[in-house]
Amino acid sequence: KQIILLPGDGIGKEIIESAKLVLNSVASEYGHRFTFHQHAIGGDAIDQYGTPLPEDTIKACQNADAILLGAVGGKKWDSLPGYMRPEKGLLGIRKTLGLFANLRPVKGFSSLLHASPLKEDVIKGSDILIIRELTGGLYFGQPSERRENGNAVVDTLYYHRSEMERIIDKAFQSARLRNKRLTSVDKANVLESSRMWREIVEEKSKDYPDVAVEHLLVDAAAMKLITQPNHFDVIVTENLFGDILSDEASVLTGSLGMLPSASIRSDGVGLYEPVHGSAPDIAGKGIANPLGMILSAALMLRHSFQMEEEAAEIEEAVNETLEQGYYTADLHIKGGKQIGTKEMTEMVLENLT
Amino acid sequence: KQIILLPGDGIGKEIIESAKLVLNSVASEYGHRFTFHQHAIGGDAIDQYGTPLPEDTIKACQNADAILLGAVGGKKWDSLPGYMRPEKGLLGIRKTLGLFANLRPVKGFSSLLHASPLKEDVIKGSDILIIRELTGGLYFGQPSERRENGNAVVDTLYYHRSEMERIIDKAFQSARLRNKRLTSVDKANVLESSRMWREIVEEKSKDYPDVAVEHLLVDAAAMKLITQPNHFDVIVTENLFGDILSDEASVLTGSLGMLPSASIRSDGVGLYEPVHGSAPDIAGKGIANPLGMILSAALMLRHSFQMEEEAAEIEEAVNETLEQGYYTADLHIKGGKQIGTKEMTEMVLENLT
Ligand SMILES: CC(C)[C@H](C(=O)O)[C@@H](O)C(=O)O
Ligand SMILES: CC(C)[C@H](C(=O)O)[C@@H](O)C(=O)O
Repeated sequence: KQIILLPGDGIGKEIIESAKLVLNSVASEYGHRFTFHQHAIGGDAIDQYGTPLPEDTIKACQNADAILLGAVGGKKWDSLPGYMRPEKGLLGIRKTLGLFANLRPVKGFSSLLHASPLKEDVIKGSDILIIRELTGGLYFGQPSERRENGNAVVDTLYYHRSEMERIIDKAFQSARLRNKRLTSVDKANVLESSRMWREIVEEKSKDYPDVAVEHLLVDAAAMKLITQPNHFDVIVTENLFGDILSDEASVLTGSLGMLPSASIRSDGVGLYEPVHGSAPDIAGKGIANPLGMILSAALMLRHSFQMEEEAAEIEEAVNETLEQGYYTADLHIKGGKQIGTKEMTEMVLENLT
Repeated sequence: KQIILLPGDGIGKEIIESAKLVLNSVASEYGHRFTFHQHAIGGDAIDQYGTPLPEDTIKACQNADAILLGAVGGKKWDSLPGYMRPEKGLLGIRKTLGLFANLRPVKGFSSLLHASPLKEDVIKGSDILIIRELTGGLYFGQPSERRENGNAVVDTLYYHRSEMERIIDKAFQSARLRNKRLTSVDKANVLESSRMWREIVEEKSKDYPDVAVEHLLVDAAAMKLITQPNHFDVIVTENLFGDILSDEASVLTGSLGMLPSASIRSDGVGLYEPVHGSAPDIAGKGIANPLGMILSAALMLRHSFQMEEEAAEIEEAVNETLEQGYYTADLHIKGGKQIGTKEMTEMVLENLT
């Protein structure tokens, strides 16, 4: 299996190393062969090649079985014009590879729930999978431009029916593998695109009679995620709503640094990255939390390589490490021990059976 | 002063009556003359006149000094086509009257904070004013239609510079009257409209050197509202982001039923409504919480009539009533007494000095 590593910016380099070590260990245990090639993206690529997404990186990713990404962005590149910003690298690779389905599981670790901003009885038992459409909508619709001599501006929310259908299908399929409840989020009382979205969800629901569907307006969803997070099983929504709601959801458990994400397409090729950012303030200090990245590698094994057992083993090893009381600077476990990126990675390696 | 009452649907009729009683009491105390005229909107108007926003209602509102609205919507009208939905009445009146500035204060009541989904040390001290642009953006941009034989769909996010300027000015002015900190929320790493928004905020900030401005991406704002609500003073953002974030913020204090809102234009004419919905399940039972509506009437006195003292008196009376332990079915105060809509209104009237 060809795996492309895109460390990117800030702590990206440090944590991607951890993922590689864990994958190598799994490979030798199960007799798999993973080959790794590293390429530049984001601010790192701007500094080296003058563009956030070099041709060379695109080509390598097009031939890959899966991609691991650390993080992109940082203050250093914030004043560059839009097309030269680190984020463009990320948006470009998603669009070029057609990675239309963004999976964001949100589940707390019992040893870390005490750090949640929510009361324990509110957050307890929450286990949500947010599925966000990732290559359409306002992010890519044209026109997106100034008008009337610079006195007006438009962005365009465009979706083709097929783009909605494939993500909604993905969501129904995912719900089937979980608790069979799907919440579709839209703004059908205002947007025509949401009305079409809702129609398609209704149509598709006939193909998945075993999945219970509900519709929720995006404003109501933003409330319910906080008041009743354990109401949800799978949530599916369009690109921008998904951006906002998945980030909102990511802080509910109190351990953002632990959350993985997958961006995949139908043939199984995918890009995997932790939800947290590049954290330039702690980069190079050896204290970054590698667990979100390691858990992203586990998602890669599950979704791109169908290696369910291997994925579950990594997830268990991470859980065990926390249960043993080890934590990084972004976390805290009462009576536990704070350790750095390398030690944390070693602990996970030890806990892999 | 000419005040139009639009009770609307569900509990709207009951709570608008409470606001009227409170306003009459204030009027006689201070020697003001308020005249009230009641008109139909929303589902109620659909049932009576076959349209969510009758001509007659529009005319009355155009001649009014201020408008009080109960709530619109309900399952009963959910299957009607888009243009015939109760919400269209609300969107129509906002747009027709040019009520571009939606003010949503979020502040907890100490006797109710225990009901917050957030831990007390997280929510304590929060006092946020969200200012949402209300008549532009994706809500009203054209085209908004099906394309390609119904196989595609577009909505349009359109803003004229002047629409951005006036709401941003309003936000700076509001920040000046508060703690002089303004958070502007956008998605400038993706949307052209957000980049123009951010430019205008930067330009305007020169006119308000006493106000400290920060920019926050909408996804980051959705996180920070939960992890650090007391970081914020005034938040300003465009229509759809404001819809999502203000609803998200409204549940943080644990007493949604208490929150008022104002939708105003530059000459001071405004529409005032509680944040909660029409709650059809408890309509007609006499148990609805009238305090969000009563506090909306206070906002009316402050923003449309410049009656600051009168507004503050109502707010104090509400606070006192809670401190005395009275609450409605949607709330709970330990050792207090649950009462109905009428009794709650009477208690507030008694507490008006
Ligand atoms: C960096 C940014 C363009 C990106 C997005 O909005 O999609 C990020 O917020 C994310 O969610 O991955
Ligand atoms: C009813 C709906 C159209 C409306 C909106 O989205 O503006 C509501 O959610 C609000 O926030 O007042």
